[in-house]
Amino acid sequence: MIPKVVYCFLLAGFLGLNACELPPREKTATSEGTVLTTATSDEVNPDEEYVMVTTAISMPMYVNHDQSAFKRWGQKMGVKTSILGPSEWDVPAQIETIEQVIATRPAGLLINGTDPGIALAINQAVAAGIPTVVYDSDVPNSNRHAFLGTDWYQIGRMQGEEMVRLTNGKGKVAYMGILGLTNMEAGFQGLLDVLKKYPKMQVVGKYDDKANVELAAKITSDVLAAHPDLAGICGFDSNSGPGMALAVKEAGKAGKVKITTVDWEPEHLQLVKEGVIQMLAGQKRELFTWYGAQFLFDMVHRTNRLSANDAASNITNVPTTINTGLLRITRENVDQFLKK
Amino acid sequence: MIPKVVYCFLLAGFLGLNACELPPREKTATSEGTVLTTATSDEVNPDEEYVMVTTAISMPMYVNHDQSAFKRWGQKMGVKTSILGPSEWDVPAQIETIEQVIATRPAGLLINGTDPGIALAINQAVAAGIPTVVYDSDVPNSNRHAFLGTDWYQIGRMQGEEMVRLTNGKGKVAYMGILGLTNMEAGFQGLLDVLKKYPKMQVVGKYDDKANVELAAKITSDVLAAHPDLAGICGFDSNSGPGMALAVKEAGKAGKVKITTVDWEPEHLQLVKEGVIQMLAGQKRELFTWYGAQFLFDMVHRTNRLSANDAASNITNVPTTINTGLLRITRENVDQFLKK
Repeated sequence: MIPKVVYCFLLAGFLGLNACELPPREKTATSEGTVLTTATSDEVNPDEEYVMVTTAISMPMYVNHDQSAFKRWGQKMGVKTSILGPSEWDVPAQIETIEQVIATRPAGLLINGTDPGIALAINQAVAAGIPTVVYDSDVPNSNRHAFLGTDWYQIGRMQGEEMVRLTNGKGKVAYMGILGLTNMEAGFQGLLDVLKKYPKMQVVGKYDDKANVELAAKITSDVLAAHPDLAGICGFDSNSGPGMALAVKEAGKAGKVKITTVDWEPEHLQLVKEGVIQMLAGQKRELFTWYGAQFLFDMVHRTNRLSANDAASNITNVPTTINTGLLRITRENVDQFLKK
Repeated sequence: MIPKVVYCFLLAGFLGLNACELPPREKTATSEGTVLTTATSDEVNPDEEYVMVTTAISMPMYVNHDQSAFKRWGQKMGVKTSILGPSEWDVPAQIETIEQVIATRPAGLLINGTDPGIALAINQAVAAGIPTVVYDSDVPNSNRHAFLGTDWYQIGRMQGEEMVRLTNGKGKVAYMGILGLTNMEAGFQGLLDVLKKYPKMQVVGKYDDKANVELAAKITSDVLAAHPDLAGICGFDSNSGPGMALAVKEAGKAGKVKITTVDWEPEHLQLVKEGVIQMLAGQKRELFTWYGAQFLFDMVHRTNRLSANDAASNITNVPTTINTGLLRITRENVDQFLKK
């Protein structure tokens, strides 16, 4: 745990607060000023509050996908949504935020599963009777009621299959991401499981780009220098693609060295449009939080009660594990994503 | 494919029809005569029709869980729901029903994934632009947009872990179900993977009860005769439990020979209440069809549009694979299910 004062600085710094307390929460639903239809014939209390706790709260991918869908859900349902957490990637600060939110007794908690270390805080929320859903990465050692995310092994397989198509099943391939993360290692395995079936595909390196664009570009330049006949390169974190693309363009090999990678931020889409990246394996992050919030609501409102008293029965009446699937984005459909 | 005339007889026989055509569909929503709130601010067309196609349409477990939740969902949303299919377990007749329903262009199709053989009919529906969701068993070789079901490997593990607790980790165990079904074989494997970690647990037999109560009872009697010191027995189809319980009661060993099995129909619950069955691994079938229907609706209404045109982009904007999880029902919470 980082010292309290540091945590407060981070959180308050981002949110423009001075005191060491939870910031005033956004009231997405009530600030709209419109009457909204709701998903059940239950009475919906407009003060019913669903709280998302993440880390790196201002990361564009989180803001544009996870948070945007969560707010839109709250507006549709006529309930409050609040989004809390430190501005930087700071797991101890996220844990402290969860602990503080528990004390305010929200209707439901939607937690970005950033690290196995948040399991204890999740268990505190569950023990306090708060419906608690984890998204993005699972925290399987916790008592969370449900998890929604992407199957990263499939992200790797999808890239492997695309790379085989793009190279006609032969050539040298390198790949990079954040080494050691459970998600990414599963992705690497998926990639390798596909490539190993093609004896003419040769893996020349696995690299740690630490989610840093400059480092991803530097690694790619070095690999291109060592292997002038490199056929393709695969990326697994949000900055892998932009970094790899930069180096491949600088080497004058755009379109010749094939690139597949993850995520579909504007920069990634533009690089597909330009023909520098051949395929994006995109996550449906909007669905993590839209349906995650809906499951919280459905627990609160007992939408699908399975016994006389599901809490007393120690059962949950929402799905346990949701794989939202993948988007395959190529030059053929990239305009649909740029136009959105 | 069975001859058309036989199919019509089956379907019409069950539904009390004379002509060889689709029966008039139930209008659960409109017949209610009440104004219902809906899940989105979209205009909802009360003629918007969602069609479930199953087989063995009158099986109590299907009627009381799958179909009941689907109808309730339709009422909540203010749309039509229809349930079609042959009265017996008849996959060719289910396929023919799907093909006929496609021609009527429903808003969405919710299909019980009874057999890999229905893949072609599913693909026809998808090719016709009809949102198509599969539930219960997956048809992974099809183009279905989403699948909701139970992880049967976990059903086996759950029974194994319970049996270890009940027997203090030592004794002879037998198990039965429908041999050869993908789901059940995964369940058997889960059971064995748990038991093999306990050197004092001994598996004395794997049996095919063909989902027949009398056969399950006969097998159990024979196993008890061969192994008077049998510690426990595990079941994997809906009739395993009632059959095993019958034989164990007849042998005067209720509560001594431990029983774990699947499903939570009234008969199963009563046997838990009596102390003959120690644990049920229950499926959340209501969630298969409730959320399956919701995903169809969300595709139709583009609730979470991810691009300018998701159909043109060849992507789906609903989750791909949903594991609804398990209910652990024991003497401690069985009253909550009996009281429901």
